[in-house]
Amino acid sequence: MTQDDSFSPQERAAIYRCIAERRDVRRNFLPRPVPDDVLARVLAAGHAAPSVGFLQPWNFIVIRAAATKEALHGAFTRANAQAAAMFEGERAALYRSLKLEGLKEAPLLLCITCERERAGPVVLGRTHQSEMDIYSTVCAVQNIWLAARAENLGVGWVSILSPADLHAILAIPDHIVPIALLCVGYVDHFEHKPDLEQAGWRQRLVLDDLVFAERFGAPAAQ
Amino acid sequence: MTQDDSFSPQERAAIYRCIAERRDVRRNFLPRPVPDDVLARVLAAGHAAPSVGFLQPWNFIVIRAAATKEALHGAFTRANAQAAAMFEGERAALYRSLKLEGLKEAPLLLCITCERERAGPVVLGRTHQSEMDIYSTVCAVQNIWLAARAENLGVGWVSILSPADLHAILAIPDHIVPIALLCVGYVDHFEHKPDLEQAGWRQRLVLDDLVFAERFGAPAAQ
Repeated sequence: MTQDDSFSPQERAAIYRCIAERRDVRRNFLPRPVPDDVLARVLAAGHAAPSVGFLQPWNFIVIRAAATKEALHGAFTRANAQAAAMFEGERAALYRSLKLEGLKEAPLLLCITCERERAGPVVLGRTHQSEMDIYSTVCAVQNIWLAARAENLGVGWVSILSPADLHAILAIPDHIVPIALLCVGYVDHFEHKPDLEQAGWRQRLVLDDLVFAERFGAPAAQ
Repeated sequence: MTQDDSFSPQERAAIYRCIAERRDVRRNFLPRPVPDDVLARVLAAGHAAPSVGFLQPWNFIVIRAAATKEALHGAFTRANAQAAAMFEGERAALYRSLKLEGLKEAPLLLCITCERERAGPVVLGRTHQSEMDIYSTVCAVQNIWLAARAENLGVGWVSILSPADLHAILAIPDHIVPIALLCVGYVDHFEHKPDLEQAGWRQRLVLDDLVFAERFGAPAAQ
């Protein structure tokens, strides 16, 4: 490896720090707007994601209008009422106590979509795993999330909306797949742990239990 | 935002550098093994990914045995012959000239899977977008990819295999979804551009053309 290629220990530490301190943020947003140059860098990080067959199937819808946020919040509210009814007893009470979106408070929302037919029906690398273009788009979402954290911007992925509502509110054509709706903005602080861990919804799993050697289910020798 | 939370300009630059210089690597792998502590850090980065309902639906299969690599390479070869036949004329010739996997040369392969029923049928955040657990797992893949780049490890996502072959070769139960097969290893250098861009397979799209304001298709004012 040439010297130019390598990351220094300091750079590496910054990258690991970003990965560890990224949070799914749905509260504590500040009204401070996201400057255009910051947004441009974050979107460029998304556009630098890997994509199957170099398809770059994504689009980025930037939402700032209060009316659009209201409409999306309405869609969330409808879906969340249905969702809450799927849990029972203490879980239902805990579910209802959680803040699961920041659609109205965040200064900016981003919707990331996938155009599956951008290069016609046959795509290099998608021939045997048809979801690969969707996965590429998710990689772009994760790049955006990490870049935003590096910019000290909180990001929350809001998935409790019906895709039909996303299509209708954002005028997304039928052949385009909405992948992620993110609320984005500066926050007064980042939590140390995921909100759902802190609330006792589920515990952090032990990594060693999740690693196998050679075959699924075969414990890795440590 | 408290001082503790913020990333310095130097840290931010490291993160953007990693995002920009990550490549999809299928050649130039060195035989040098990946140390266990490096692999542990990379897997921990995957485990730090966001997950819907804090489900952490992933497992990581670490493959080092030559026989397993051979079997996966055989599955690739079969699928790739079918894939090549889907392209015509000059595209078919170009397709056949591309190196699309490094399954035998890479010292390490990783298969990342998704267990959809890890927390029962009803998952917070998956009630209205059923693929969210799959997307969480893809976020783990992207974290692994970026952490590996920070460790100066090349990673290539090999998707030209049938999922049935992955299930059979890696003993993946029917209810577990294989998401990604990665070849991982040190490389003698990283390319400046994606291989498929360099080969003229497709061009880099212009980011501004991909950004919309408020609604799909509405150009963003720049």
